[in-house]
Amino acid sequence: MSIRPTISLDALMRPRSVAIIGASTQAQKVGGMPVRLLREYGFEGRILPVHPEANEIQGLPAVPSLRHADAPVDMAIVCVPRASVQQAIADCVDTGVKAAVVFTGGFAEAGDSGLADQQAMVALANGAGMTLLGPNCLGAINLKQRMFATFTPAALAGAPPAGSIGMVSQSGAFGAYAYTLARQQGLGLSHWITTGNEAGVQVADAIDWMVRDPDTRVILAYLEGCKDGPALVGALRAALEAGKPVVVTKVGRTAAGARAALSHTASMAGEDTVFDAVFEECGAIRAHTIEEFFRYGQLFAQAPIPRNNAVAIVTGSGGVGTLMADRAEDLGLELPPFTEAESAQVTTEASLATTINPIDVTGQVMSNLKVFEVACDIAATNGRYGGLALFTAAGALAPHFWAMLEQCARRAGQQAGVTTTVAGIMSAAQRKILAEMGCLVYEEPTHAIEALAMLRCYATAREQRPAWPQADLKAKTQPTLQGQPSGSLSEAAAMQLLQDLGIPTVPQGVAHSAEAAVAIAEQLGGPVAVKVLSADIAHKSDVGGVRLNVQGADAVRAAFNDITASVAVRAPQARVQGVVVARMVKPVLECVVASRVDPVFGPVLTFGLGGTDVEWHQRIVLATAPVPPERVRALLERLDLTRRLDGWRGGPRVTPEALVACICAIGQLAASAGPALQSLEINPLMVNEDGVFAADALIQLEGDPA
Amino acid sequence: MSIRPTISLDALMRPRSVAIIGASTQAQKVGGMPVRLLREYGFEGRILPVHPEANEIQGLPAVPSLRHADAPVDMAIVCVPRASVQQAIADCVDTGVKAAVVFTGGFAEAGDSGLADQQAMVALANGAGMTLLGPNCLGAINLKQRMFATFTPAALAGAPPAGSIGMVSQSGAFGAYAYTLARQQGLGLSHWITTGNEAGVQVADAIDWMVRDPDTRVILAYLEGCKDGPALVGALRAALEAGKPVVVTKVGRTAAGARAALSHTASMAGEDTVFDAVFEECGAIRAHTIEEFFRYGQLFAQAPIPRNNAVAIVTGSGGVGTLMADRAEDLGLELPPFTEAESAQVTTEASLATTINPIDVTGQVMSNLKVFEVACDIAATNGRYGGLALFTAAGALAPHFWAMLEQCARRAGQQAGVTTTVAGIMSAAQRKILAEMGCLVYEEPTHAIEALAMLRCYATAREQRPAWPQADLKAKTQPTLQGQPSGSLSEAAAMQLLQDLGIPTVPQGVAHSAEAAVAIAEQLGGPVAVKVLSADIAHKSDVGGVRLNVQGADAVRAAFNDITASVAVRAPQARVQGVVVARMVKPVLECVVASRVDPVFGPVLTFGLGGTDVEWHQRIVLATAPVPPERVRALLERLDLTRRLDGWRGGPRVTPEALVACICAIGQLAASAGPALQSLEINPLMVNEDGVFAADALIQLEGDPA
Repeated sequence: MSIRPTISLDALMRPRSVAIIGASTQAQKVGGMPVRLLREYGFEGRILPVHPEANEIQGLPAVPSLRHADAPVDMAIVCVPRASVQQAIADCVDTGVKAAVVFTGGFAEAGDSGLADQQAMVALANGAGMTLLGPNCLGAINLKQRMFATFTPAALAGAPPAGSIGMVSQSGAFGAYAYTLARQQGLGLSHWITTGNEAGVQVADAIDWMVRDPDTRVILAYLEGCKDGPALVGALRAALEAGKPVVVTKVGRTAAGARAALSHTASMAGEDTVFDAVFEECGAIRAHTIEEFFRYGQLFAQAPIPRNNAVAIVTGSGGVGTLMADRAEDLGLELPPFTEAESAQVTTEASLATTINPIDVTGQVMSNLKVFEVACDIAATNGRYGGLALFTAAGALAPHFWAMLEQCARRAGQQAGVTTTVAGIMSAAQRKILAEMGCLVYEEPTHAIEALAMLRCYATAREQRPAWPQADLKAKTQPTLQGQPSGSLSEAAAMQLLQDLGIPTVPQGVAHSAEAAVAIAEQLGGPVAVKVLSADIAHKSDVGGVRLNVQGADAVRAAFNDITASVAVRAPQARVQGVVVARMVKPVLECVVASRVDPVFGPVLTFGLGGTDVEWHQRIVLATAPVPPERVRALLERLDLTRRLDGWRGGPRVTPEALVACICAIGQLAASAGPALQSLEINPLMVNEDGVFAADALIQLEGDPA
Repeated sequence: MSIRPTISLDALMRPRSVAIIGASTQAQKVGGMPVRLLREYGFEGRILPVHPEANEIQGLPAVPSLRHADAPVDMAIVCVPRASVQQAIADCVDTGVKAAVVFTGGFAEAGDSGLADQQAMVALANGAGMTLLGPNCLGAINLKQRMFATFTPAALAGAPPAGSIGMVSQSGAFGAYAYTLARQQGLGLSHWITTGNEAGVQVADAIDWMVRDPDTRVILAYLEGCKDGPALVGALRAALEAGKPVVVTKVGRTAAGARAALSHTASMAGEDTVFDAVFEECGAIRAHTIEEFFRYGQLFAQAPIPRNNAVAIVTGSGGVGTLMADRAEDLGLELPPFTEAESAQVTTEASLATTINPIDVTGQVMSNLKVFEVACDIAATNGRYGGLALFTAAGALAPHFWAMLEQCARRAGQQAGVTTTVAGIMSAAQRKILAEMGCLVYEEPTHAIEALAMLRCYATAREQRPAWPQADLKAKTQPTLQGQPSGSLSEAAAMQLLQDLGIPTVPQGVAHSAEAAVAIAEQLGGPVAVKVLSADIAHKSDVGGVRLNVQGADAVRAAFNDITASVAVRAPQARVQGVVVARMVKPVLECVVASRVDPVFGPVLTFGLGGTDVEWHQRIVLATAPVPPERVRALLERLDLTRRLDGWRGGPRVTPEALVACICAIGQLAASAGPALQSLEINPLMVNEDGVFAADALIQLEGDPA
């Protein structure tokens, strides 16, 4: 899908030798920090400081240039001043360095001359096949190998444990803050990568590499913008295929945020609804806060996937149980009750307990712990529940309660397909013991529910991932689009294009006189719609350019004359190509199907409820093109349009398949035409028992297709 | 509004003497715990254990019954077994006790006989004017007076500091968990009250009392259901009037939650959208998680109100700044940029800084702290910003950064109308220092933004609180409704009622023959609508009972016959009263206005986009009746209907005032009629240049009004 070649981060993230070009004797300086960190954390490979004069840097022998190294260097950290960066990169290339990290700033983010220098640096690196991270980045860390190619002070305070979460951040400062929080929360990281200006390695490349990295099981990605949408889509799809969940925070969602992102790193934030659609299509989990970013990352790293959406809530507080039940319903989880026999086992232990789920063991649990244990064991072992959500309040602080809870969690943890979450107050040591069983612990009860929902949401996205269609670049519509000049297609040409594509259009003709209109109407038979034909008028009804349900010669004649007169007054600048006389098609539903070219991700579709007030109703969705039919069906369901077609208020029952096929066909057209098809909008697309009929279409071309 | 008398909690919450009926020598028992807690925490008043045999309880002299007390007792804690509760209450009443807390369970929550006993207990207490808390509750605590009338083990681990937040929880277990979290987080509480079965004191009474309590500035309320909606509304309005923010968590939002709440304490959860509307109307802040409950409570207790919606974000990380800007836009905050002169002051200190807001001081802050200070001081003192949101990452852990931050926060704290929030990692001691300046500290950057938005949201609700109209119980419509039998009004009677109310209806007549229909149509002139008239048919168009735009005698005759035939086939059971012939009114917008009687809150209105698909579009809102016109206008804006009336797509410009007046009139009707008007629905209500016209109305009566 992307034409971007796969970039290996092997030499960058798993070097056997690291040179520091611009190494400093002062450990707190930018050039001193990586030397210090590599030594203090015990990097296993060779550390080679490069310094024009010093023979020794922080106790390590130094060389005056890479050329003086006695063995090839895998990776070089470039921390020289701006003016010397180009030479340092040239040295790397000349001596066969496989990867370079550039900390130095003042490139693309500083204006045109910086951008030119950055491009020259990239050209050098690309020519030699050298992987380039940065410039203007905080570097990267491989926690397992203790490879610290960074100068962030955040690394001085200690490291998070080595673990299975790979983190990549476009922003250095965000990355550093996240690194500190990971250390504080004991979140196990495999790699930490900041991409800065992304002259070489982009966030998408880092994700793609971590999908293939055996040390990484979960990927946390922070984005401000994206230079190569298809590469990001490719990496996210690869992650879904590999079963490695990606949690992503994309900032610049709003106008204010996009403005901030632009001024910050010159990143174009892109249209957020498109990112949202991409993340959903690829099963990536979007986090909107740093707290969510970590919480989601941790839960995917730690817990198994529940086998189904059924959850048993076991609680000693009816109130908190209700709070949790509310959240479960919000998130589409199910709360099936205990059977009568199971209920009897619970109420034998505590007479006031209720088992409709939440299983409320009530305050009676204080005098008889066994009721909690019985309820947990039933839920864990009866085979019906994928998730257990236990509310323990402050119970775990009492030793006998804790002993019971630990046993329950252990037994539940041994059941395949059962995931246990606990909400309550407990010590760090207790949390750790439960974590090691794959049991998630939260202080906030609703988080225990959200965790189960997130795991299920990911599992469902993975199970239901479609076979993504490829753009058919030899599509039969290509000839129609090729050789056309830029600009709007005439309505007649647009309708013809749809017909070529197999999309029926409403039978119609173009009249240039009232009598011609009458003749067309008579030929069509029945009532007709009469509409002005002009590429300059986007909203015909707003200028009195539409008459519907016109029947009989006199009425058609009057409609022709009224429209012509009204348009002449209300849209005097518009070039009028004639008047369309079309058969009235009675729709069960009026839809809209449109495509446009997103600057980041390329062709995208929007579709949903059509008609004149489409923008006001906003009952539309977005999908990248081409789109598989199963995704279209799911989105029509979400829009609640399928129900409108299926015998709505005594109307006919219409299958959505003609609509689905039409949307897929437009998706193929958009994908195969690429930027040549700047935009297309069919509105209304009449849907009824006989199929779909395009009643109106607007198509904008952008010169010849590439 | 409520007919419920004000209940004083003075004797309950500020007793000078407390008797414990059922006091136990064993400190861990239900009857031992309050004695232990009152002693250990040093209750200032007298503690009087009551025990049939023991002379001494936990070192205090005991009496065999209240009658043996040598002085009057203000408050009694009842912790005797279920069978002895009635006698204990009788003893209280006989000896002039002013308030009683009943821990004992097994009353209304346990079935009919429990309910009867509970009612008997209430009758006794009410007869003597004794305030009753419970039964089946965890009791209450006055932190300042160290008055512990509770048996929750949560109180053993220590107490939260005495402070200004009053907490009331219907659920004991929720209350206990919240109490523990408050202690852990150092949240300062004034009072802690659990209401259990609410035989006497309800959550609304506790709120109402805390509004008048000088020790309470912020109220946290947890609800599962509500027995007296108007009392709750009254308490919340009083709180808004007094400027005491109420943060409320209402569980049982969803079907699953409502089921759980019902099984838990037999609380009817009520319709959640009605609660939502009530909370919003009364400026109460709804929290959906326990985390939010506390976070919101704390911010209102701690921070001043920002003077306006303008926020300056000062950050060293562009990425986090963007995240915060996104959240600010989500929540309707404004981010005006620095002026050129202000920008120059910032960029003098750090050349790469950007000041379009977020004010991004960049990584340069690490080499020159002054840039952060300059940016903060400008934002705090230029008079344009109500809120400062600072992102400090881990900066505060460095002493020189902390010293700078503390000074900035202090100076900002001295500016009236400026609220400072900080996101970053810092020590508990540092948090406390900032808290004492009224500065809020969060680890999650978006929380710093949410805090400012919450404060502004409350301030706006308070500033814009309307004068709430009273139900006019002598309304002129009363005679129309009085003396009517239960059931549906005929359409003609319904239209007459609307006319009496000053709401225009579409000119129409009822025909019993095709020829009569033709006569009516000729009298009306122009095209007509022909509709079946039957109280048994709610959706006329679904049974072929409607023909629109009918013109000419033949067409009217055909429409009459078609409708009669279609209804006979498709709704054979319906009693048909005739056929309505109405003038066609061309609407600019079709609206719906409806009222119904909510079992908790009484008459409520819904209004919004009407037409046949009103349920599908769901563009409707809810308000309690009567409703002030300013609130109706605000809700029409929120529905984006005002824009649809104001020259939408080249259409006429219609003021919403006729619609507003109609909705307010229906609100008055519903409020004055009370339960007599079971439901009313005008759909469609045609809105156009000439005003509003009810085209169809359904009215259900429930016998005579009370």
